Amino acid sequence: MAGMLRVGVLASGGGTNLQALLEGVHEREARIVAVATDQPDALALERARIAAVPAATFPRGAYPDRVARDVAIGDWLEAQGVELVVLAGYMAILDGSFIARFRDRIINVHPSLLPAFPGLDAIGQALDYGVKVFGVTVHFVDEGVDTGAIILQRAVELPDATGPGAVLVSLRPLEHALLPEAVRLIAAGRVHRDPAHPRRVVVDAL
Amino acid sequence: MAGMLRVGVLASGGGTNLQALLEGVHEREARIVAVATDQPDALALERARIAAVPAATFPRGAYPDRVARDVAIGDWLEAQGVELVVLAGYMAILDGSFIARFRDRIINVHPSLLPAFPGLDAIGQALDYGVKVFGVTVHFVDEGVDTGAIILQRAVELPDATGPGAVLVSLRPLEHALLPEAVRLIAAGRVHRDPAHPRRVVVDAL
Repeated sequence: MAGMLRVGVLASGGGTNLQALLEGVHEREARIVAVATDQPDALALERARIAAVPAATFPRGAYPDRVARDVAIGDWLEAQGVELVVLAGYMAILDGSFIARFRDRIINVHPSLLPAFPGLDAIGQALDYGVKVFGVTVHFVDEGVDTGAIILQRAVELPDATGPGAVLVSLRPLEHALLPEAVRLIAAGRVHRDPAHPRRVVVDAL
Repeated sequence: MAGMLRVGVLASGGGTNLQALLEGVHEREARIVAVATDQPDALALERARIAAVPAATFPRGAYPDRVARDVAIGDWLEAQGVELVVLAGYMAILDGSFIARFRDRIINVHPSLLPAFPGLDAIGQALDYGVKVFGVTVHFVDEGVDTGAIILQRAVELPDATGPGAVLVSLRPLEHALLPEAVRLIAAGRVHRDPAHPRRVVVDAL
């Protein structure tokens, strides 16, 4: 392992969070050793190729069901020696067996201050509700929808936001800062559950 | 009316939010003309007396039911010419008839970033969940529990918070800033619903 945390990234779309990881932590505090997508045309694949990171596509249609696909993804990630799985804009739901296989070793970034607005279109949900503070959460993935223990959160006040574009412009930089930061902290062994309260994640100070 | 918004405050306990209103807006942008409590020993009564604001207590036991009590409170507030009702640490649930009577003229301050953690012990709920960002919301009161349209919100990052004391110390100053600010904005006629999206509250810029 050469002391560097081996990270696998799952992405579906443009892969800007993958890019933030490649630029922010790759070959520094951690090594991105695998990029998997469910979309054959995901731009993430091209980003992986440019960074010389092994990449693979697992399209839904190529497997009898989600369980079979997620077994294939898990097998491939383990073959690459992945220790931490990062969901970076991965839009498919992961099967429970995948989550159990990588228990407490999967993290996700979500564009809301969880537990508010889990699931799809978090920014649209927040705008519909009429909130004045938006934010980003990095959390461990468990069997629920965006219900896992929170590692990092950051807020931004946007009292005049009316459309998703302006919110996205404000949240994207937070995602691109928080996700690499979480990987960095995990790689450094600074992230633990509070034994007295497992939902609370403790980040050790330096 | 002499041009100054007439505000009635409902409080149950220490009345620090009432004090923030007395110090922050009273006889400036608005006039606090009535303080009502459900607790005969609420410190809010003493604060009202010192500020020479009419105060009254409506103890639960003095009325056959909550409806009757809330009618009495409403009658008294209207007799004082109250135009805006501010819940400042008022711990009793208001009857639907009271809310209808003062439709869109009741505001509340709540120690969470709603819609997360409505209801009692918001700070305890947030600590149990393990959030890293806490906050305060000022909102219009509707028939739901802390579900009304949001006027102002402010967030504070407390990633290492383990107990309610430290969170309260951080949130109290936000409450004491946001609640007077909301009254000030309403008094200035700067708070509106977005006609195209009534859950969204628009605050006019100066």
